[in-house]
Parts: sequence; C-alpha cells; structure tokens
Amino acid sequence: MALIVQKYGGTSVGSIERIQAVAERVRRWRDQGDQVVVVVSAMSGETDRLIKLAKQLQERPEPRELDVLLSTGEQVTIALLSMALAAQGCPARSYTGAQVHILTDSAHNKARIRDIDAARVRADLEAGRVVVIAGFQGIDEQGDITTLGRGGSDTSAVAIAAALKADECQIYTDVDGVYTTDPRVEPKARKLDRITFEEMLEMASLGSKVLQIRSVEFAGKYRVPLRVLSSFEEGEGTLISFEDNDVEDAKISGIAFSRDEAKLTVLGVPDQPGVAHRILGPIAEANIEVDMIVQNVGADEATTDFTFTVHRNDYASALDILKRTADELGARQVTGDATIVKISLVGVGMRSHAGIASRMFASLAKEGINIRMISTSEIKISVVVDEKYLELGVRTLHEAFGLDQPA
Amino acid sequence: MALIVQKYGGTSVGSIERIQAVAERVRRWRDQGDQVVVVVSAMSGETDRLIKLAKQLQERPEPRELDVLLSTGEQVTIALLSMALAAQGCPARSYTGAQVHILTDSAHNKARIRDIDAARVRADLEAGRVVVIAGFQGIDEQGDITTLGRGGSDTSAVAIAAALKADECQIYTDVDGVYTTDPRVEPKARKLDRITFEEMLEMASLGSKVLQIRSVEFAGKYRVPLRVLSSFEEGEGTLISFEDNDVEDAKISGIAFSRDEAKLTVLGVPDQPGVAHRILGPIAEANIEVDMIVQNVGADEATTDFTFTVHRNDYASALDILKRTADELGARQVTGDATIVKISLVGVGMRSHAGIASRMFASLAKEGINIRMISTSEIKISVVVDEKYLELGVRTLHEAFGLDQPA
Repeated sequence: MALIVQKYGGTSVGSIERIQAVAERVRRWRDQGDQVVVVVSAMSGETDRLIKLAKQLQERPEPRELDVLLSTGEQVTIALLSMALAAQGCPARSYTGAQVHILTDSAHNKARIRDIDAARVRADLEAGRVVVIAGFQGIDEQGDITTLGRGGSDTSAVAIAAALKADECQIYTDVDGVYTTDPRVEPKARKLDRITFEEMLEMASLGSKVLQIRSVEFAGKYRVPLRVLSSFEEGEGTLISFEDNDVEDAKISGIAFSRDEAKLTVLGVPDQPGVAHRILGPIAEANIEVDMIVQNVGADEATTDFTFTVHRNDYASALDILKRTADELGARQVTGDATIVKISLVGVGMRSHAGIASRMFASLAKEGINIRMISTSEIKISVVVDEKYLELGVRTLHEAFGLDQPA
Repeated sequence: MALIVQKYGGTSVGSIERIQAVAERVRRWRDQGDQVVVVVSAMSGETDRLIKLAKQLQERPEPRELDVLLSTGEQVTIALLSMALAAQGCPARSYTGAQVHILTDSAHNKARIRDIDAARVRADLEAGRVVVIAGFQGIDEQGDITTLGRGGSDTSAVAIAAALKADECQIYTDVDGVYTTDPRVEPKARKLDRITFEEMLEMASLGSKVLQIRSVEFAGKYRVPLRVLSSFEEGEGTLISFEDNDVEDAKISGIAFSRDEAKLTVLGVPDQPGVAHRILGPIAEANIEVDMIVQNVGADEATTDFTFTVHRNDYASALDILKRTADELGARQVTGDATIVKISLVGVGMRSHAGIASRMFASLAKEGINIRMISTSEIKISVVVDEKYLELGVRTLHEAFGLDQPA
C-alpha cells in the first residue's frame, strides 16, 4: 500500500464533467489499495473571474483581501470533488489550507509554506477516506488567509507529500510529461522518462511551465519523488528523481527558455565594496525577483558596470528604483531592455564534460544570433538574446545537442 | 461614539456597484465617529449558482461538503467589500466565520451558533478599522466549516452584536421596515416605527420574511436593539425594542402569514401517556421542525387524534415517518394536506384585551373562510385555512383590526 499525493490543476477540474473524471481516476487508485491525498486548484477561469471583480474595485487590490477572495476558488473545487467522490461511493473529506494548518509567512499573494500539521489528514487516511486539500492557499500566524501565488498548488502538493512522507507526488497537468524543450517551439521535442531534480529545477526556473519552481525546490529538499503526468491520457509521465548513474551519459537533458525577461544595466558605478548590495537591496525590498546578475569592469578602472534581469512585469518598477539608486551612487547612466529572452541548456552531465559552452556559442553564432549576456551554473548555461531569436535559437540548440534522438 | 453592527443581504451586495454603495454608507457611519462591524451575505444568485454545481454531482450533496462550498459565497463578498472600503480611503479588514471563531454545533446546513470570540474584532475596531465578517457561516469544534441555513446572516449579525455588546444591530434589506402585513398581499399595509421583540418574533416565525426568526430570538435573548431598514433608501426603518408602555395601546401590531405549511394528522392513536413524544420524537430526529401541534379527543375515549404542521418542504419525509410510527402505535389512519396556509394576528396588547379571538373568527366566518386549526399564544392567534383563502383572509383581518390607520 502506497501513500500517493495527486495534484490536479485548473484545466483538469475545469468543469463538472472533468471533476467527475478526476474523481474516477482518484477512486481507481484508492480501489487498488493506495492511500490518496488530492490537491486541487481553482476551476480554470475562476481565478481570473475573481481578479476581474477585484479590479473593478481597486486597480491594485489590497493584498490581504485579494487572498481572502482568491482562496475561495480552490475551496469550491475541494467541495465539488469530494461530492463527486462520494457520488462514486468513495468516502472523501475536503480541507482548506487553513483547516490542515498550511502555515505560511505573511507575504500575501506570494506566501511561502513554513509548516503543515498532517495529523488530521493521517487520521482520515487511516479511516479509509480520500483527503481533498485546497492548493495554493495557507494561513499565517495571525490566522490570516494567504496564497502562494500562481502555480502555488504544485508547491502545496509537494509540501503536503513531504509532511506525510508520501511515496510519490503526482502532478497531473495538460501535458504528458517534461520535454526536451517546448514542443510548440520545436516540434521535434521529445518526452523524457526521467530527469534529475537539479535539471528540473533549472528547467522550471528557466520558464518551462510544466512545474512551478518552488514545488521542485521543495521536492528536492524533502526528497519527495515527483512525477508529472497527463490528467487526460494514460501514461507514465516523467519521473523527477535523484541523480543516479545512468543519467551521467546524457550530457544535456533539455533546453529551457523564458520570454518574460527584461534586462537593466547601471553604467559607471564607483567600484566600491558593497555596491552590488546597494543596487540590489532596494530591488529586493520591493519584492522584485532578480534572476541573472553580471558585473563587469567599466570603461575606467574606478567604475564598474552592473547588469541584471527581472521578470518583464517588474521592469517598470525596477527601472524606477534603479534610477533613484544610481543617482545616490553617482553612477553614469541607467539603461534597460524589455525585449530580450533567455535560452538555457540544462543537463547534469554538463559538469563532467568540457566543451559544451563553446559548442553552444558556436551554434548560435553560426545562425547570426548575438549573445547579450551569459551566465552559467553547475548544470546549465544561459544566454540572453533578442526576443526575435527565441525560436531559431531553441531549434538550433535542440538539433546541435541531438535532443531529438532517444538518449 | 456608538458601536454599530450592520448586516447587508444578498440583494444589497448583488453587484460591484451595490457593493460600492454599501461601502459608501458604511464609510459615512464611520466618518460620523461610530465603530462599524459589517456582516454580509453572498452576492445574490451566488448561493444558487453553487447549489446548482453541487446538484450536478449529487442529488443530495454531502452536507459537510455543501457547507465548504456555500461558505465561499460570503467569503467573496467580505473581500470585495473590504476592497471597496479601502478604495474609499476607509481602512477595513475581512474575516470568515472561522477566523472570528463563530463556534457552532455540527449540524451542517443548519448549524446553531454557540459562541463567538470577539477579541480580534475589538482590536481592529480600536485601531480605527471597519470589520467585515462573513455571515451565514461558522466553524464547529472539529474545525469543520458549517453554515446556519438560509437567512443565517441575520443571526450572525445579531450574535456578533451580542458578543460585542453593540449599541444597535441594523439589518439592511430591500424593504424599508416591518409592515403591518405583506404589502404585496394588502396594499394598505403600513410601516411600523417600532415593534416589540415578542411581536417581531411571532411575525418572523409566522412567515414575515423581513428577519430570520433565530436572529430575533438571539436579539431578544441578548437584549440587542435591532433595526430593520432599507439599503436602497434613506429612512429610520423599524426599531425592534423591548416592551414599553406606549405599546400597550396598540392591541394588534400586524398580520403574519406563511404559505409554506403542511398539516399531518394521526387518527385513532391509543391515548396513553408519552404518545405525543412517540409521534414527534422520530420527526425531530429527522431534523424536521414542527410548528403547530393540536391534540383532540378521538372518536372513542380510548384514542386520540393528533395533528401538527411542518414546513411544506418536509411534508413528504414527515408523512413517511409518521406512517411508520402510526403502524407501531396501532393508530387507525394517517392523513395530510400540503395545501394549507397559516394566518396569524400578532400583538403584545392582546394579553390585556379580551374579545380579540372572537372578533377574528367572526371576521373570517363572514367571508366564508373555514378555519381548519387554531393555536394561540400570549401575543398571537394563528389559524390554518385552505391556501386559496390566504389573500382574502389577510385583507379581511387587516381591515377588521384597523391596521391601515396610524396607531
């Protein structure tokens, strides 16, 4: 008997018929003898409907009240799914985030999970019930409702799986697994049977929309085996597992990209200790996430040039803040560009194989794609290019690294 | 500075524009220097929409899950109203029933409030905030979400007013006060400036839809001054107060009626001690509320006839139960009628004035209206008649007791 946590996204529970189909799938797992906990999102369209109501009242709705509002979306789904299960003769019980004490910090609209009290869930499972939990939401220490931000239901599912020490956390979605790259950009993209956590983390953080990055971090940290699979077709999906030997052979697992990038540069900052902190501190305080950071020596030796990327939605605010900081620091100039994208090669095998970076740069150069920024980690190489080169760049690299061939 | 609890029903918050209008009214009270707690219902139509979703999954939705589902309706309203208040520069904070610990029993779909923890509300009021609370809902000792049944938001408001020792509990609705009878039935009906709790209790229990009966009971028990007024027009509404001298003059305050009645009779029950309990016990266990009860001597002296009324929705279930009980008791026959209505004369003054009952019966007889059952209390006389006589009966009594004349 295994303990499985399953997560179904908004499309999978987007109508009464789909909720019934999810109930049937859940019931089949339970009939096999497994204990099943289901984590669900709001029915597709519901969150947008609620946001639209809120925006009629406030252009920027109160974050605390927005969470009170949005958390109703998942609450509707848990009730309906529990009814659908009961209608199929499968005893079930629903819980909101607050009811199973998904304790988060108080950062409304983008809260982080701190702790989960799994006792009540365990008692229901022991009693033979399926437990249905609202994803995306929690409660802070003051008892205020919080939400984890878009895609947070994945994180909820993994956190619950970790708290319950589940055997597997299954993320049901509208794709049947993780691909070498986005099939809409490269039709030759191939589904991976398995991928390591580190690779998945890079893929997720780089814009592969299959899984939300925080959920992968969580799963890696708490060693929860994670599986991505389709809620509409049968299949094994992609298992995200801990590194093992047979992965070493595959140098590159996939190509991730992100369209939502913007780049900001401060030119001619006096090169003093602590300058990076003085530039990025105010950005972080405004809750803007910074992605790539590059610092170069400037035109003269006393100054430096400092470049970083942010989500395109945060570009305008980041630029405002940066201009103020630049004035304070006596920097020469601030520039920015919101028409860039990031393409990344991801692979655990990269560590032990030289020459991958140079092959990447050569392939891009051959197609005349100018690289604007480079950043590397143990298992990925990212380049920033003009957005018009996105598709060409992805396809070029997919072919250059033989990703269309089975490993 | 007064502490006011205001309750707005579904029609009053039925659209973004109406929510904004409510926010403006609330803000005006606060700007006057009062502390304001607002209790709201779901936006009109929302509860029905949710019930419709549930019924697509289960003909009789799981009561526990139905409460999880329905409680989202008010949760949406509290968030939106708090945003509307914030948009008007009025600091506000929303709470679900669970968040302010509106502790109820575990009778899902018709729970009763046991206790409220008002500490958090008081802290917000002290900090100058308007507090917006979801009506209709609470939480039981297991932490499960409960709802109080339709109209329960009134009860929530009164219970909160009692817990906070509020100076007044204002129920905003789509009528501008309590009338001598329903103006749709008798156009000459007149708005009352004040009415006593006892009278209001009888009016409410007898089908005047202005206030939910439990809310009046609560208000009476905890001595919360209650005011009914319109959320669409200005006006003083009707104050429901404790009996005082000037009320003595008015013999009759109003005429209440209820269309949703059904009558059940067991004929020829052996007349033994405990027989009433044996008949009504199983009905009560099925959570069916019994209203009028009449017991007469039967055809012979060893048996008795027993008649009671229930809500028309419960007629079929009550009849089933009663037939089983009748078999067990060896009763002769069970009969029933779901085409009856109840009309009642209500007035505190009735206590000290003889002859009211006979005037009532005479007026009805003059119009050829046959009385099927009679029941009396200290401040009301109720008759059950065929439903076709409802309008005629109400108008006849309204005129006979001079209710169209100002008191």
